[in-house]
Amino acid sequence: MPNKKKYNVDGDAGRKAQIQFADQKQEFNKRPTKIGRRSLSRSISQSSTDSYSSGICLTSSSDDETSPRDKQQKNSKGSSDFCVKNIKQAEFGRREIEIAEQEMPALMALRKRAQGEKPLAGAKIVGCTHITAQTANRGVALISLSVPGFPVFAWKGESEDDFWWCIDRCVNVEGWQPNMILDDGGDLTHWIYKKYPNMFKKIKGIVEESVTGVHRLYQLSKAGKLCVPAMNVNDSVTKQKFDNLYCCRESILDGLKRTTDMMFGGKQVVVCGYGEVGKGCCAALKAMGSIVYVTEIDPICALQACMDGFRLVKLNEVIRQVDIVITCTGNKNVVTREHLDRMKNSCIVCNMGHSNTEIDVVSTVQHREGGTASGFGAFPPQGRLLNLSCSTVPTFVLSITATTQALALIELYNAPEGRYKQDVYLLPKKMDEYVASLHLPTFDAHLTELTDEQAKYLGLNKNGPFKPNYYRCGSCGH
Amino acid sequence: MPNKKKYNVDGDAGRKAQIQFADQKQEFNKRPTKIGRRSLSRSISQSSTDSYSSGICLTSSSDDETSPRDKQQKNSKGSSDFCVKNIKQAEFGRREIEIAEQEMPALMALRKRAQGEKPLAGAKIVGCTHITAQTANRGVALISLSVPGFPVFAWKGESEDDFWWCIDRCVNVEGWQPNMILDDGGDLTHWIYKKYPNMFKKIKGIVEESVTGVHRLYQLSKAGKLCVPAMNVNDSVTKQKFDNLYCCRESILDGLKRTTDMMFGGKQVVVCGYGEVGKGCCAALKAMGSIVYVTEIDPICALQACMDGFRLVKLNEVIRQVDIVITCTGNKNVVTREHLDRMKNSCIVCNMGHSNTEIDVVSTVQHREGGTASGFGAFPPQGRLLNLSCSTVPTFVLSITATTQALALIELYNAPEGRYKQDVYLLPKKMDEYVASLHLPTFDAHLTELTDEQAKYLGLNKNGPFKPNYYRCGSCGH
Amino acid sequence: MPNKKKYNVDGDAGRKAQIQFADQKQEFNKRPTKIGRRSLSRSISQSSTDSYSSGICLTSSSDDETSPRDKQQKNSKGSSDFCVKNIKQAEFGRREIEIAEQEMPALMALRKRAQGEKPLAGAKIVGCTHITAQTANRGVALISLSVPGFPVFAWKGESEDDFWWCIDRCVNVEGWQPNMILDDGGDLTHWIYKKYPNMFKKIKGIVEESVTGVHRLYQLSKAGKLCVPAMNVNDSVTKQKFDNLYCCRESILDGLKRTTDMMFGGKQVVVCGYGEVGKGCCAALKAMGSIVYVTEIDPICALQACMDGFRLVKLNEVIRQVDIVITCTGNKNVVTREHLDRMKNSCIVCNMGHSNTEIDVVSTVQHREGGTASGFGAFPPQGRLLNLSCSTVPTFVLSITATTQALALIELYNAPEGRYKQDVYLLPKKMDEYVASLHLPTFDAHLTELTDEQAKYLGLNKNGPFKPNYYRCGSCGH
Amino acid sequence: MPNKKKYNVDGDAGRKAQIQFADQKQEFNKRPTKIGRRSLSRSISQSSTDSYSSGICLTSSSDDETSPRDKQQKNSKGSSDFCVKNIKQAEFGRREIEIAEQEMPALMALRKRAQGEKPLAGAKIVGCTHITAQTANRGVALISLSVPGFPVFAWKGESEDDFWWCIDRCVNVEGWQPNMILDDGGDLTHWIYKKYPNMFKKIKGIVEESVTGVHRLYQLSKAGKLCVPAMNVNDSVTKQKFDNLYCCRESILDGLKRTTDMMFGGKQVVVCGYGEVGKGCCAALKAMGSIVYVTEIDPICALQACMDGFRLVKLNEVIRQVDIVITCTGNKNVVTREHLDRMKNSCIVCNMGHSNTEIDVVSTVQHREGGTASGFGAFPPQGRLLNLSCSTVPTFVLSITATTQALALIELYNAPEGRYKQDVYLLPKKMDEYVASLHLPTFDAHLTELTDEQAKYLGLNKNGPFKPNYYRCGSCGH
Repeated sequence: MPNKKKYNVDGDAGRKAQIQFADQKQEFNKRPTKIGRRSLSRSISQSSTDSYSSGICLTSSSDDETSPRDKQQKNSKGSSDFCVKNIKQAEFGRREIEIAEQEMPALMALRKRAQGEKPLAGAKIVGCTHITAQTANRGVALISLSVPGFPVFAWKGESEDDFWWCIDRCVNVEGWQPNMILDDGGDLTHWIYKKYPNMFKKIKGIVEESVTGVHRLYQLSKAGKLCVPAMNVNDSVTKQKFDNLYCCRESILDGLKRTTDMMFGGKQVVVCGYGEVGKGCCAALKAMGSIVYVTEIDPICALQACMDGFRLVKLNEVIRQVDIVITCTGNKNVVTREHLDRMKNSCIVCNMGHSNTEIDVVSTVQHREGGTASGFGAFPPQGRLLNLSCSTVPTFVLSITATTQALALIELYNAPEGRYKQDVYLLPKKMDEYVASLHLPTFDAHLTELTDEQAKYLGLNKNGPFKPNYYRCGSCGH
Repeated sequence: MPNKKKYNVDGDAGRKAQIQFADQKQEFNKRPTKIGRRSLSRSISQSSTDSYSSGICLTSSSDDETSPRDKQQKNSKGSSDFCVKNIKQAEFGRREIEIAEQEMPALMALRKRAQGEKPLAGAKIVGCTHITAQTANRGVALISLSVPGFPVFAWKGESEDDFWWCIDRCVNVEGWQPNMILDDGGDLTHWIYKKYPNMFKKIKGIVEESVTGVHRLYQLSKAGKLCVPAMNVNDSVTKQKFDNLYCCRESILDGLKRTTDMMFGGKQVVVCGYGEVGKGCCAALKAMGSIVYVTEIDPICALQACMDGFRLVKLNEVIRQVDIVITCTGNKNVVTREHLDRMKNSCIVCNMGHSNTEIDVVSTVQHREGGTASGFGAFPPQGRLLNLSCSTVPTFVLSITATTQALALIELYNAPEGRYKQDVYLLPKKMDEYVASLHLPTFDAHLTELTDEQAKYLGLNKNGPFKPNYYRCGSCGH
Repeated sequence: MPNKKKYNVDGDAGRKAQIQFADQKQEFNKRPTKIGRRSLSRSISQSSTDSYSSGICLTSSSDDETSPRDKQQKNSKGSSDFCVKNIKQAEFGRREIEIAEQEMPALMALRKRAQGEKPLAGAKIVGCTHITAQTANRGVALISLSVPGFPVFAWKGESEDDFWWCIDRCVNVEGWQPNMILDDGGDLTHWIYKKYPNMFKKIKGIVEESVTGVHRLYQLSKAGKLCVPAMNVNDSVTKQKFDNLYCCRESILDGLKRTTDMMFGGKQVVVCGYGEVGKGCCAALKAMGSIVYVTEIDPICALQACMDGFRLVKLNEVIRQVDIVITCTGNKNVVTREHLDRMKNSCIVCNMGHSNTEIDVVSTVQHREGGTASGFGAFPPQGRLLNLSCSTVPTFVLSITATTQALALIELYNAPEGRYKQDVYLLPKKMDEYVASLHLPTFDAHLTELTDEQAKYLGLNKNGPFKPNYYRCGSCGH
Repeated sequence: MPNKKKYNVDGDAGRKAQIQFADQKQEFNKRPTKIGRRSLSRSISQSSTDSYSSGICLTSSSDDETSPRDKQQKNSKGSSDFCVKNIKQAEFGRREIEIAEQEMPALMALRKRAQGEKPLAGAKIVGCTHITAQTANRGVALISLSVPGFPVFAWKGESEDDFWWCIDRCVNVEGWQPNMILDDGGDLTHWIYKKYPNMFKKIKGIVEESVTGVHRLYQLSKAGKLCVPAMNVNDSVTKQKFDNLYCCRESILDGLKRTTDMMFGGKQVVVCGYGEVGKGCCAALKAMGSIVYVTEIDPICALQACMDGFRLVKLNEVIRQVDIVITCTGNKNVVTREHLDRMKNSCIVCNMGHSNTEIDVVSTVQHREGGTASGFGAFPPQGRLLNLSCSTVPTFVLSITATTQALALIELYNAPEGRYKQDVYLLPKKMDEYVASLHLPTFDAHLTELTDEQAKYLGLNKNGPFKPNYYRCGSCGH
């Protein structure tokens, strides 16, 4: 196996996590949204050596003040091609991963299926993402599509400088060059564009899962600067519904309860934004007996809020009376200083959006990021400053995202010449459906199959896709 | 005004309703789905004469056995260019229309706005649709975009032959030729293709609102036979959500209650299909205390059913135990003879889909169509045969559809050369948003406006559209 | 059998329906709340002759203007001991009763069980109640507890004079004297107190099902004037929950939809009163997407409304903005002229309470009573006057009430000397539980049985009652 | 002030917390249900000296292994008449109490009102309850009804022996004797019955808040052994609804999420018992998209479950398929070894009932008690043993209970001779209503007042009580 890479570390530049397969690497790291950067809660590291027997490691919050960058660590296989806080906790991490597998049936099914096929054989993937037990497992699953073992560069409490150092360490490796990018936020892609543009010659595609990253890709595409195909995983139906609607429906309750122990019944709440996230929050709070108001800028979403039983207001109209303000807009300065000044004393402000821009008092807002870029910030206008930690993201949700990513990688990597151009693509509907179908056994759900006669009547293939391509939002019945 | 049209009636061929404006005609008629054809409940007729003072007429179910085709009728202005059951009920019909206007604020707003602009001046529209107080109003609104008065050819109890006779009567008019088609089901379009293909030379576009009609248009387009631009109104977000999700959420309860007086609490129900219609039915029945099972063929919808709290089953698994079977698939033979044989004695079968194909016992099923092509059929397997009449469709829902149609007509009629080719188009997102915004005042809903800074941050125009075009279903937050 | 009664008709006094058993009579009639009196929708009549083969009769709304009091009618057995509109419709009525039986499984089970025991043998019951297919069946069931056949005095459109004439005809019968009273509203009881006080010497007890009637009985008891035991059936758990909470949850939607075809989604509604009826209305409307406000006088119910997610307001605060006002208070003048003046033009006022007192504009309110004394009145302050007909009451609900009444009659009739004194009693908890258990098979519901060990641990009898007697509202978990 | 009590400590017997007022004591301690005993999470201690300046103390989980019984501690006033883990944390505890006050508006209102009246002047209260920030505040509120300062005997990790030692220390005090008992579970009452029966001569009454304690009191009463009046606070409407229905509706989600991070959507859950606790759990899980089955022994509750949309099953029928089992019965051995053996591998068993008896595998069940005696136990039949910590109980709920207790103490203490006999009483309805009314301002809820005319019509006092006394469960509209 020729993958005896040695990679130079560009000390003051940046470094990244890597994931490697048989003769390739796959790097993982994550640069969350600006505020969230400091909140990476757990990091995982696994060495990638010739033998690829792995050494997984989860750092705990230790009192060790030495920067991981300055430590000399080796995993159980003797490799030091990684950078984490404490490789000795690898065994604990591995066990957490095994637990997480229980709730990731689809990924397991995919992994099992792939054992024969090895659809990513030859792929050299560099990745940048959040590292938790779940995303670690994601990595494990990806590895198993090919070979085990990949290096990780990540730790809790990375500085911005650390963050870029990790990214660079993943990319700038002697004797090894990625041919696939798995990004979450666009920072890894951005880095390669900026520092190693020639790398794109060998790269077959980018898989991006975040709103921000997708936005950047469309801008690149519009400007004619996108030089490889990119798969917009963020906008796949399954990811959207689960990451946003269903996940937020549960996590809004969990997050508020953990941090405030408040009772929801009878509380007046205003939810800013009635997209999937807002819909999830509203549904949950209404079900728990809160009185919910909604603000919106888009008349279509506004009309939906009306029909779902929520008073559509401007924030000013209710700011004096509400007990909770929840922002789910992706916009900036939705809650302003003026609003904060007019709130009740005990009012809780909670950010469910993607970044901390929604609340215009950055310096006083504590933000702690959770799973899929949805965090809680709380700013009690007078009185105590609450540092709200986000609720956790159910493993099941991550399973859906990870499966979608894996399929996107496989699709891009194996697509015949010409299927994908230098553009941004949505995952083919059939793959969305495949991701969904892999998750049905969890619910003991029994899908009905079309008879030949029915398939013919509907003009559909019995195996899908089941919705025409001309369908767009609101018309496909999802 | 040169609009002294006289049109030949092709006696044995077919005739249609017409709507005419100052120097044009606009014809309305409706050929519902195959079975529903016989269930046109009300027809409206208004003469179109030189003076355009109108005579609206609603036929009641009279004992008069004479075919309207054989009657000699004149409206209050002396015109006989129409064919309805009884022109003497015009005044009653006009009052019903006035009542309906109260719940159609958007159409009224649009009509008001248009009084100055006359965006359809010169348009000669031939239409084919259901005729009820609400659709009559739709016609009235369209007229007001230009001038009042249009002839109608429609009555309750039309035979298939009557139906085509009406269509032909609308198209085949001496001295008058349509330049816009407003269709619902595709029959009018089909007739012109078949009988008067040359007419398309002057036709600027087709606006189609039904699933079936849209399906036909895409097939024409695929086959390269579509010779004018067509607007797919069916798949606009507002129409979809309101006609399907929100409307069915209410009408499933209404329809079942009116026809059976059953209690929903504790009843076991299986809903076949979890698209928007199925989602609406499930939500309503769950809220009323029914225990709901779902069947699906599409794994994405299936997964949503699971997350929404419904057991996903095959029909066979629950057919013996359920009290109600509701089909919302658009598919055929969803409920078969075998299912019917295994049902409980008092089980109710109810068809919420688009046609009677869902239940495979056509001859024994009574089907009575309601508003937007969603009907109830009930087949108590043993015992009494119930002829279930559908719940009514809220005027508010029709207002949304009618407004969307009117905007589509305006868009196609006024679009600059080249904007639309011989293809099927979705209404521009901005128009969807405009339709929605016209309906917000009904709910005293207050939309939030973006600040300049926010619009810039989001890369949006302050007036919308608010969702990027690359968004597809599940990702636009609707 | 000595029951060859002939009874004098006290012409100018009043007459009532009668139900008779082998050697007794059982009379039914109904005097609804004051306004509702005129709204008895269907009456049933069955002769009681020697052979007791019955002749059931349902009057339709005929054009016959002759008062039933002036008609000479005979049933199929030749008896004329009844007074209904048209005895010829007896066969149609019988069929309606057979249909109703399908949804009254408990009554059927009770009837079946009683066929051997004849627990009401010797009972001579005089009753006064609403007559519909369902209550007719109730009568049939009661008869079967003993023997078939009983005379009825009732028709649609009774005047107040007719009403009392019917009552008197039931009581004032030569050679026959009742020993049980089955009342609904207290009018029958009141009449006997006033006209035939000596009759109470032979009467074993009164079973009363209405709020008003129960109120009167407690007043009699308080004043020391109650001379026989009375069973308060109104306040039995099963009746309360079903007649009020569950039934209103469904009927509010049905009633509004049938009369107005309005869409509930997004509508602003104020519900006056948060008892069981109000709770049912609020739950249903919230589920359909309405925005619901609540008014209350009782702080406990008020707090519940808060916790259930409804803004607690005074009517004045929201009267200008709401689309619907629903009264469920049992109070008077809840909606006043002043409120009506301030409503929106299209606002709908709907009375779900027990009488028309809730809305203080009696002369302008149209009231049409439905099943269990819950009616809809609607008063659009400006514009058209709507005559709203109530939704129907599910047969299942009536089954529960009828079963409870039957058990109450049996209990009072068979109770050993001294068990019941001259007081008002609630049905023993165990009987409530029995009524409930008879209805479980409808839902294919499987009750868990206590093990001996568990029963001992809880100090309960394995067959119930399952809640201690000291439990009161809110503490028994119902 | 003659309250220079010195109390003997009966070393090996038992000691309790005390609360004292000006010339009296008030003791608090808590002996939770058998298993829960070890789970007292926080204790509060405040000395009671002549000056009554208090020293509140909250113990944290320290590494200090010395038993508090063996420590010599003094509070800031020099008193050592208390026993807690670490009196130095008094200041932190005081601040937690101040925070809790924010959510206890009613108690604050009551305290404020009482400042003039001092309705408990002269009362010497000994109490036994859970100690948390909230219950501490309860004590503070009670104190303020009279005077500040009371000794506490309690710490986390008490052994059974410690528990009884604390109780005895509270009762067995030289020169001081209680005249009121505030109990929670009946242990304090039991101890006095057993050890100091003569004390009852001076005791005016017992206020008991738990199911178990109330059960014991009714047994004493039945056996003729109850020698003072007792107030059953447990069964007051406000406490029941809030402690059970509303609190559990929220805490079931919180508890499961915190301990398992599972997604609720699509999970199959069986809830054993459909009382208020079960109803709360079912409503919450249904709202979150779980599929919920219910088991019941009481046909009335069973029928309610049906009407609320839950399949009523026996546990055996669904045990193989469910993901979660929740017990809310108060019964024993509801989940047996046999059930555990048949569960899915990852099935979670969760006890929401009052004690650990519900699950018959005591030794393997981890139980950690939460607020009002509702704890979570989880027993994953195969695999990892989870030690689930309970969700917290909202302060608002505790406020309701505490206010009710305070009113019960005041009522019993001030009741004229003869109003209460040696029996168990429910709080007068008017006091229930008063408790509720004190909590309405939290929700900005506006109660409607009866007009004189309305009050007369209803036969009610304008200030309540608003429900007749003969009303019982299910009939009072709560």
